[in-house]
Amino acid sequence: MPADYHTANDLLCDRLAGDGIDVDVVKAALKAQAIETPSWGYADSGTRFGVFRQPGAAVTIWEKLADAGAVHRFTGVCPSVAVHVLWDFTPETPPDAVVACATEHGVRVGSINPNVFQDQEYKLGSIAHHDPRVRTKAITHMRDSIAFGQAVGSDVLSLWFADGTNYPGQQDIRKRKRWVQESLAEVYAALPPAMTMLVEYKFYEPAFYVTDIADWGMSYVFCKALGPQAKVLVDLGHHAMGVNIEHLVAFLLDERMLGGFHFNNRKYGDDDLTVGSVNPYELFLIFCELTGPLSTQHSALSTQKIEYMIDQAANLKLKIEDMIQTVMQIQTAYAKALIVPRGQLEDAQMDGDVTRAEQILVDAFQTDVRPLLQVVREELGLAPDPLCAYRASGYQQKIEAERGHRKGTGGLGQTG
Amino acid sequence: MPADYHTANDLLCDRLAGDGIDVDVVKAALKAQAIETPSWGYADSGTRFGVFRQPGAAVTIWEKLADAGAVHRFTGVCPSVAVHVLWDFTPETPPDAVVACATEHGVRVGSINPNVFQDQEYKLGSIAHHDPRVRTKAITHMRDSIAFGQAVGSDVLSLWFADGTNYPGQQDIRKRKRWVQESLAEVYAALPPAMTMLVEYKFYEPAFYVTDIADWGMSYVFCKALGPQAKVLVDLGHHAMGVNIEHLVAFLLDERMLGGFHFNNRKYGDDDLTVGSVNPYELFLIFCELTGPLSTQHSALSTQKIEYMIDQAANLKLKIEDMIQTVMQIQTAYAKALIVPRGQLEDAQMDGDVTRAEQILVDAFQTDVRPLLQVVREELGLAPDPLCAYRASGYQQKIEAERGHRKGTGGLGQTG
Amino acid sequence: MPADYHTANDLLCDRLAGDGIDVDVVKAALKAQAIETPSWGYADSGTRFGVFRQPGAAVTIWEKLADAGAVHRFTGVCPSVAVHVLWDFTPETPPDAVVACATEHGVRVGSINPNVFQDQEYKLGSIAHHDPRVRTKAITHMRDSIAFGQAVGSDVLSLWFADGTNYPGQQDIRKRKRWVQESLAEVYAALPPAMTMLVEYKFYEPAFYVTDIADWGMSYVFCKALGPQAKVLVDLGHHAMGVNIEHLVAFLLDERMLGGFHFNNRKYGDDDLTVGSVNPYELFLIFCELTGPLSTQHSALSTQKIEYMIDQAANLKLKIEDMIQTVMQIQTAYAKALIVPRGQLEDAQMDGDVTRAEQILVDAFQTDVRPLLQVVREELGLAPDPLCAYRASGYQQKIEAERGHRKGTGGLGQTG
Amino acid sequence: MPADYHTANDLLCDRLAGDGIDVDVVKAALKAQAIETPSWGYADSGTRFGVFRQPGAAVTIWEKLADAGAVHRFTGVCPSVAVHVLWDFTPETPPDAVVACATEHGVRVGSINPNVFQDQEYKLGSIAHHDPRVRTKAITHMRDSIAFGQAVGSDVLSLWFADGTNYPGQQDIRKRKRWVQESLAEVYAALPPAMTMLVEYKFYEPAFYVTDIADWGMSYVFCKALGPQAKVLVDLGHHAMGVNIEHLVAFLLDERMLGGFHFNNRKYGDDDLTVGSVNPYELFLIFCELTGPLSTQHSALSTQKIEYMIDQAANLKLKIEDMIQTVMQIQTAYAKALIVPRGQLEDAQMDGDVTRAEQILVDAFQTDVRPLLQVVREELGLAPDPLCAYRASGYQQKIEAERGHRKGTGGLGQTG
Repeated sequence: MPADYHTANDLLCDRLAGDGIDVDVVKAALKAQAIETPSWGYADSGTRFGVFRQPGAAVTIWEKLADAGAVHRFTGVCPSVAVHVLWDFTPETPPDAVVACATEHGVRVGSINPNVFQDQEYKLGSIAHHDPRVRTKAITHMRDSIAFGQAVGSDVLSLWFADGTNYPGQQDIRKRKRWVQESLAEVYAALPPAMTMLVEYKFYEPAFYVTDIADWGMSYVFCKALGPQAKVLVDLGHHAMGVNIEHLVAFLLDERMLGGFHFNNRKYGDDDLTVGSVNPYELFLIFCELTGPLSTQHSALSTQKIEYMIDQAANLKLKIEDMIQTVMQIQTAYAKALIVPRGQLEDAQMDGDVTRAEQILVDAFQTDVRPLLQVVREELGLAPDPLCAYRASGYQQKIEAERGHRKGTGGLGQTG
Repeated sequence: MPADYHTANDLLCDRLAGDGIDVDVVKAALKAQAIETPSWGYADSGTRFGVFRQPGAAVTIWEKLADAGAVHRFTGVCPSVAVHVLWDFTPETPPDAVVACATEHGVRVGSINPNVFQDQEYKLGSIAHHDPRVRTKAITHMRDSIAFGQAVGSDVLSLWFADGTNYPGQQDIRKRKRWVQESLAEVYAALPPAMTMLVEYKFYEPAFYVTDIADWGMSYVFCKALGPQAKVLVDLGHHAMGVNIEHLVAFLLDERMLGGFHFNNRKYGDDDLTVGSVNPYELFLIFCELTGPLSTQHSALSTQKIEYMIDQAANLKLKIEDMIQTVMQIQTAYAKALIVPRGQLEDAQMDGDVTRAEQILVDAFQTDVRPLLQVVREELGLAPDPLCAYRASGYQQKIEAERGHRKGTGGLGQTG
Repeated sequence: MPADYHTANDLLCDRLAGDGIDVDVVKAALKAQAIETPSWGYADSGTRFGVFRQPGAAVTIWEKLADAGAVHRFTGVCPSVAVHVLWDFTPETPPDAVVACATEHGVRVGSINPNVFQDQEYKLGSIAHHDPRVRTKAITHMRDSIAFGQAVGSDVLSLWFADGTNYPGQQDIRKRKRWVQESLAEVYAALPPAMTMLVEYKFYEPAFYVTDIADWGMSYVFCKALGPQAKVLVDLGHHAMGVNIEHLVAFLLDERMLGGFHFNNRKYGDDDLTVGSVNPYELFLIFCELTGPLSTQHSALSTQKIEYMIDQAANLKLKIEDMIQTVMQIQTAYAKALIVPRGQLEDAQMDGDVTRAEQILVDAFQTDVRPLLQVVREELGLAPDPLCAYRASGYQQKIEAERGHRKGTGGLGQTG
Repeated sequence: MPADYHTANDLLCDRLAGDGIDVDVVKAALKAQAIETPSWGYADSGTRFGVFRQPGAAVTIWEKLADAGAVHRFTGVCPSVAVHVLWDFTPETPPDAVVACATEHGVRVGSINPNVFQDQEYKLGSIAHHDPRVRTKAITHMRDSIAFGQAVGSDVLSLWFADGTNYPGQQDIRKRKRWVQESLAEVYAALPPAMTMLVEYKFYEPAFYVTDIADWGMSYVFCKALGPQAKVLVDLGHHAMGVNIEHLVAFLLDERMLGGFHFNNRKYGDDDLTVGSVNPYELFLIFCELTGPLSTQHSALSTQKIEYMIDQAANLKLKIEDMIQTVMQIQTAYAKALIVPRGQLEDAQMDGDVTRAEQILVDAFQTDVRPLLQVVREELGLAPDPLCAYRASGYQQKIEAERGHRKGTGGLGQTG
């Protein structure tokens, strides 16, 4: 990374000005970006073949909030933390202590994530289970989560269901669909007016035949039937191979049904890798949709309320470093999307000039926006390179020394 | 195939009776099945690497109707023929001559398929083209097709669009979405009350970046906005790899939004192979959804109006033989679905007995229903094995002698 | 299942005789079939989202051998048990006690499966790790496994490696390749002359960027460099979507490099489902290759020494029932492959008669071979339906009562 | 593109020097790069749904050589042209006229591509056909192509086969494998000592069940059996989804079996899109393998003789513009790979520092190398931006005026 990023940024700004880009608007947008990190991203995780435990990995909610605070301190754009009810809280956890702890670390509680897949009773499903007692248990937990969310100041209920079947015939698909719809309606009825319900879909895993909410279309249909507070949640790793995610994003935006993202990257299944590690161009194209392709007044992020959340699971990298890398990749993609000369693009499109229209995006993508981001961070009072700064800060050494290796209950890596 | 299919069928019927299956109902359902064959399935076709021309392949609509008539004569379940407006007709083709010819061959005209992808003007799209003149041309052709359909007694307008883009940035995705919606609305407005509009989706090809109607969800959203006469058309080859098609079918049925099928099979892309040649179990599972899993009174085909159409392209097999093979595979899958003991299945499902529930489907699938189908055909006055009967009939030799090899305009294999 | 399977079988035998099939040869082949079940298939397992524990699931090697013995008792074709060194044994386990226990349950120890993926030191790899100490540890474990295998009478060392990387740049791909080759060579050097080394490949998981032995080609190249005792192991769930497995099987057979199978079925990733539950036709086609398409004297299983092993993980079904279902599916596929009239098929192929050649396979697949298998089992002194017989036997109730639910170390479900 | 690329390049060079990169070596490598463009890439092409004809698209070999000359004139790195025997030549085409024409346009003839898939006789295969007369015809054409190649100074025979089957049972897979091997041996025997035979593989299309050379492993096995002049050709669009191509490249390089590339990009099937239009990061990672990861002395392209060929089919973009875009993408990927600080990378890898190792590649990829490439072009006497320069040159207008729209025989778009 150049020490001379000011010079590089000056050069870049000149060029952008030549393209009619107002760099101050771009910088303001970058400073206003808000990305939510997940509490479980600071805890041990693994694959079905095992969990590799990291020294210093968080176990308690207090540790997770501390780590999320560290990520926000170094990046400046991660003011909230998604929480996972079963992994983060016990019935005795006082909500105000959670709020106080978050505040102390400079963050706040973001989306509330119930867990209706972990208990043994959910073996054959939760809201799609054929036994009404199991459905009721799941619904109750989600309603409790809403209450807890209210207590900690959250306005987003984020729902993912592992529900599905492994074998043809295992259960009647349509019955399950109706149980899902009815169960969601009961949860929706408990939503306070200001809270959004996000409904996530997933192609497969852990169900290997039918996943009850398998694609954006199913999530859309369920949300439409629920009401205006229900929106679709797009996890970048939850699609069949080859699916054009930016297309779905544009479609959902146009329908005003996009509620948020779970950012991660995948090459094969739901790999939950660092964002941008497989195809950073795809991430850029998604942000090109989010920054509004139609005109210059849409050059900031969509005015629709959309949650930008990270959901990844670092097994081989240190948790906090991985989170910072991901945040930087998202910032980079956003910055590149912001400098696309929309007017030129629209002209090329309406001329049917395919080569030029594509090349405009290619040129924006090939632009090195790191100097711009470094200046933005500097203006926010941050170190220009968050990853280097984190490494130099001693935080990692501190938590490793204090926490050590533990077999904790912090997330997917927990002992069941 | 055993000459002793009567004995085998008696044995089968005994067993089915033991499972509480009313064989007369099954046979009645099989006799009432109606599968539509496509006019273009009798014409030469190929891949982008070339067309292998077959002796006797149909070129004119008259030849196609004759061939479709032959398929119906040997199978007894193919009473209608899908027509492709540009490939089958000229502006001068008299509709009543088409009707008369169809009648002569014992069939009728089924779905009307406009063609808005072949002309050079459609290079960048038809209903999603940025030039309103191109959109108007496409809309006009579809409205003309409706009129032609009415003239030949069709009540189904079947729409597939090659619209899409090949490169990021090529066109604004949301603008295209709106052009699609507006264009479809103009077509829909011209529908007579008794006509259904089927809207097909496709994962990719010939567009390689965005396909404007890329999945069932998009088709659903467009149809919902159009009105009750618009329904989703499911082509078995138009999905990403791994997509659970029977799940989509069940979901759409429950939404009452399933309008019809294009049957074929695929292993990789949109391979348009003989039905059942890749995964006959999947076809069976689709028919298990269609025959209604909920209760015994649904043990015949869904009461929703659904078009069962074939859309395949035989390059290596003789056209008519391939069509007969496909029809037999569909009959087989349907017959196996009809003999599933629904009550037992539902009991196992509600007991959470995954092994038994699956095994009930496995047992139905492993049952050899060919004797039953042979008896059904016999009772319809047909030869028990349509493929053997066709081969023995001399029809193929006759058309090869009469028609020979031609470079015609009968379908995808035409010279542009 | 018909009580009258004798009549059905007589009918089938008549038909087969008409096709020139010697039913006695078929029956002899079916009786001689040998399928190996895995010890870990009787223990709890799960996904990364959790493990659903079953009452009666085996934990100790003694329980696993007992369960494998039960499967063999009901199916008659599962005489050996694959063992997983770390999960099944401690350094103190006496080999002769294992042999004695297996013998007591009517089975023997089959392939030896070392485990070089579970320990924390293997986080960045085992035989491809950049630290030679880790590679040495892995090699030592595999050499110890060979010794243990010799002590328990095994002649197959079955190797699967989780080795790989998650991120571009994480490690030099070619260095890793050489470490793999060198490490395997050290293991190979310790093989006794009569022992085969099987080298498994996998498309992905748990590695999400590079898997060091990612496809059959890599396994082939490594094995070729090792020597004649090294062969390729094909796990049916370890391929990219769409890969034609029967093609790979035929190719490897022709190269005399196929060493064995891990049978399971998958729809998406490495789902480890019951064999035949996704695409039973594919399984049939694989057995068509194994039974030798070239001439009638190859109509029994290939004379090459090939291990037929099951590797699946039932989460939702009871372990033993699932294993029996899988064995029945494999028997069914094999039986159908055995009744293909090879001469007719070859004639159709050499005539270029694509329709007829395919139809010959379709007809064999559509044939209900359950009566034949029932008679075969009866002649072996077994109940005709192993699944029903197992359910009626009380074995499941017995182990549930004796063993109950435990959090054991029996397999993937163990607590790390 | 900034007019101030000198300043930007100076800044970049300072930074690279700080990383220990010798910019002169990088520039020399970039100037020495040689990418082969395909004659058929200048001719009309399409999908199976039709061909969109472009004004000015080349039909004759003379036009194609002229267009290839134009691409070389604007890029400076495309000195050779792959030719397709059936599409480019008639038996009467004088080889020396071809050579003279190429020379006149500043290029030379590169690889020779026989065509054994287009004739009607190849419907069921060429070198894998069951009829020896068809195999002989194909072999003869390839031997003729070798002779023609020698006459025009080519030293590369590039072989792709459409051979395969569409249906299970259609043909014996192992017989076909042996016919392939025998046929290739006959072609190989005719190779002059200095000529390389490249054997391409493909996952599917136009065959939809078995493709006889389906993956790199099969190509490898065939080539090994042939001899040292046979090498594997990697087309970037010929893999199953998710396959890690850079892994294959590294593996083949280490085996010294990589013979060359067909560059293009794909999102779904074999889409033949502009290089870098789907995932430019993947292209960069491939070049990271090619530039040698092991040590600094390998920082230029591998010393193994590897053909860098483009194989793409622009339907929506103008042919020559598309080719220039692709060349620029390849140059960009190569330049980014050249500036990876190999020593730092190796240190991070051997430290097991996954985050840092990956970040080193990310940093190189995020670097804007366009200024460097502009200076390199300037030093070669070229315009800094080839695409703009081409657009400004009037060449396109000239060929459109001179050639117009024609239905020619220039490539895949030809009328059969």
